[in-house]
Amino acid sequence: MKRYTVLGGGSWATAIVKILTENLPQITWYMRNEHAIEHIRQYRHNPNYLSSVELHTEKLHLTSNINEAIEEADYIIFVIPSAFLVQELSKLTLSLKEKVVFSAIKGIVPESGLVVGEHLIQAYGINPLNVGVITGPCHAEEVALERLSYLTIACEDLLKAEEMASALRCTFIRTKISEDIIGVEYGAMLKNIYAIAAGIAHGLGYGDNFQSVLMSNAIREMERYVDTIHPIARNINQSAYLGDLLVTGYSAFSRNRLFGSMIGKGYSVRSAFMEMNMVAEGYYAVENAYKINQRQALPAYTPILNAVYKVLYLHHSARETFQKLTEEMD
Amino acid sequence: MKRYTVLGGGSWATAIVKILTENLPQITWYMRNEHAIEHIRQYRHNPNYLSSVELHTEKLHLTSNINEAIEEADYIIFVIPSAFLVQELSKLTLSLKEKVVFSAIKGIVPESGLVVGEHLIQAYGINPLNVGVITGPCHAEEVALERLSYLTIACEDLLKAEEMASALRCTFIRTKISEDIIGVEYGAMLKNIYAIAAGIAHGLGYGDNFQSVLMSNAIREMERYVDTIHPIARNINQSAYLGDLLVTGYSAFSRNRLFGSMIGKGYSVRSAFMEMNMVAEGYYAVENAYKINQRQALPAYTPILNAVYKVLYLHHSARETFQKLTEEMD
Repeated sequence: MKRYTVLGGGSWATAIVKILTENLPQITWYMRNEHAIEHIRQYRHNPNYLSSVELHTEKLHLTSNINEAIEEADYIIFVIPSAFLVQELSKLTLSLKEKVVFSAIKGIVPESGLVVGEHLIQAYGINPLNVGVITGPCHAEEVALERLSYLTIACEDLLKAEEMASALRCTFIRTKISEDIIGVEYGAMLKNIYAIAAGIAHGLGYGDNFQSVLMSNAIREMERYVDTIHPIARNINQSAYLGDLLVTGYSAFSRNRLFGSMIGKGYSVRSAFMEMNMVAEGYYAVENAYKINQRQALPAYTPILNAVYKVLYLHHSARETFQKLTEEMD
Repeated sequence: MKRYTVLGGGSWATAIVKILTENLPQITWYMRNEHAIEHIRQYRHNPNYLSSVELHTEKLHLTSNINEAIEEADYIIFVIPSAFLVQELSKLTLSLKEKVVFSAIKGIVPESGLVVGEHLIQAYGINPLNVGVITGPCHAEEVALERLSYLTIACEDLLKAEEMASALRCTFIRTKISEDIIGVEYGAMLKNIYAIAAGIAHGLGYGDNFQSVLMSNAIREMERYVDTIHPIARNINQSAYLGDLLVTGYSAFSRNRLFGSMIGKGYSVRSAFMEMNMVAEGYYAVENAYKINQRQALPAYTPILNAVYKVLYLHHSARETFQKLTEEMD
C-alpha cells in the first residue's frame, strides 16, 4: 500500500484530498497555515477553500511541517502554486530522489522558467520516470459538489500513472493515463493564455461567434506549440488538452479570463491586478511561453500567444492588436 | 456581376440579407409571408426575426413568388428550414440546373434522408460543381449586432466558393473557402446532436467539467463520422467543424440544447416539443445520422450519437444511458 502526501492548502489541494480520502484509509496533508489546520481538525472543513466540503478528518494526518509530510510519503502530490513552489521547497532538508512526485500545478516556475515537471527533474535530480502530472479539465468547485469529472494522469512510467489513477478514481472521478507529461503540462500552461485572450476579446466587445473561432484557432495553435516542444504522436482533442482549454476558456469564473477582460476594457496590467487583488497565473505564462517558443530552432506559428504577449508585455493597444489577430485567424 | 437571391424569411435568412446588402447593389429576397414583405417595405425591419436590424430596402427586390426569385438569380442561397424545403420547392416551375445553389441550412431533408447539398444534387439534377454550403460558427443574432463572425463557404468548385465568399465578406464577416462540402454539412448536422447531448447532460445535473469532456469526445466522434462518410484530409479543428460545434454546444440559446435539457429533466419528447412550441431540428438529425452510420460498411464508433438515439427514439432512461456513456468517454 503506497502512502500519499498532498502539499498545498488551496482549493485544488482540498479537492484532491477529498478525492483521495474516498479511496485511501490514510493520507498526509501539508499546508503552511496552522490556523487552517486547527480549523480543519476541529470543524472538518477548510476555512479558506471549498469550505462546503466535509473532510474525512479521521483519515487525515495534517501537518505544517513539510519534511514530516515528505518523509511519510511514497507518492507526493504538489498542489502549491508554481509561483511559491521554490520558496516552499527551500524548507526541505530531505531528498526527493526516492519519491514519486506528481504535479497538479499549472504554469511555469518563475525562478527556472520551466514547467513544474521539468523543474522538479532538473532542480531536485529526480528520475524522470518518477515524475508525473495530474491534469483536468477539472474545476475544484465541481469536485466539491461531486459532479462527474475526468482527470488525466501522465507519467512516462505508465505503472506509476496507473497507481496514481487508481488512488484518484471514485464514483465522481474517471481517470485516463498518458505518457505525454510534457504535452499535457505545456497544454495546461497555454490554455491559461488562451483564457486571457478570450477575456481580452470579450472585454473588447467580441461575441460568442468570435469566441468559438478563437477556441478553434487556439487548439490548433496549442497543437503546433506542443509538437514543436515535444514532437510525439498525440490527439490534441483529448480531454487533457482540448477539454482543459474549453473548461477554462468558457468559464465565467476563470481568473485568467477575468484578467483578460479587464485588459480588453482598458485597464493597465497593474491596475487590473490591483483591482483583482491577485495576479492571474497566466500572466507569467505568457512571457515564458513566448520566450520558450522563440528559443526553438523553428518556432511554432502562434498568433494568439504573440498578440497577448504584445498587449501585456509590450503595451500595444489591445484593440489594434486583436483587430490584426482577427485577420490571422480562420 | 452575379445576381443573388435569398430564399427564406427567418433569422438566418435576414442576417444573410443584411450581410449581402453591405456589398451588393441589389438582391432578390423571397419569403412566403406577404405580410412580412409589406412590413419590411414600409418599416425597413423584418417584423418576425432580427427585428432590430434596419434593412437596406432600396437594395431589396422582395417577392413572395419563388419562381420569380429564382428566375432573376445566378446564385441562389437556400435558407429555408430543411423540414420545409421539399414543400417550398414543390412550387417551382423553373429548372435549377443552370443555377449555382448554396445551402445555408443545417440538417437533413426528412423526405430524402439526405443533407441539403446532396438532396439538391439528387432531387433536382444539379451539377455537384454548382452546389455549395455556407456555414458558421454564426449566430444570426450576433450578425444583427455586427459582431465579427467567420463563415466558411464550401464548394467543390473553389471559384464559385470564392465568388460567394466575396459577396459575403464585409467589415463584420470574414470568410474562408473549402472544398469539403460533405464534411461541413455532416459536421453541421452532428453538432446539433451534440448540442442535444450537452442539454441532456445539463438537465441530468452534470456540470462544466463534464461538458468540456463531452465536447472533447464529440469533436473526435464527429471526425470519425465524417471520415467514414467522406474520407478526405481535413483538420476537424477548423472553425467550420469545431467552431460550429462550440458555438452551438455552449450556447444558452440553442433550441437543441434546450430540448435536450428538458429531456434530461424528465420530459418526454412530445411534452418537450409542446412546451417549446416547436420542434428542435436536431431531433430529426439524430435518427438520420444514426441510420446513415449504420448503413456504412464499417460504421464509425459514435457512443454519443448512439446514446442520444436510444434516449429519444428507443425511450431508454436518459439517466442510465448517460451513466453508461460516461464510461465510454475519456
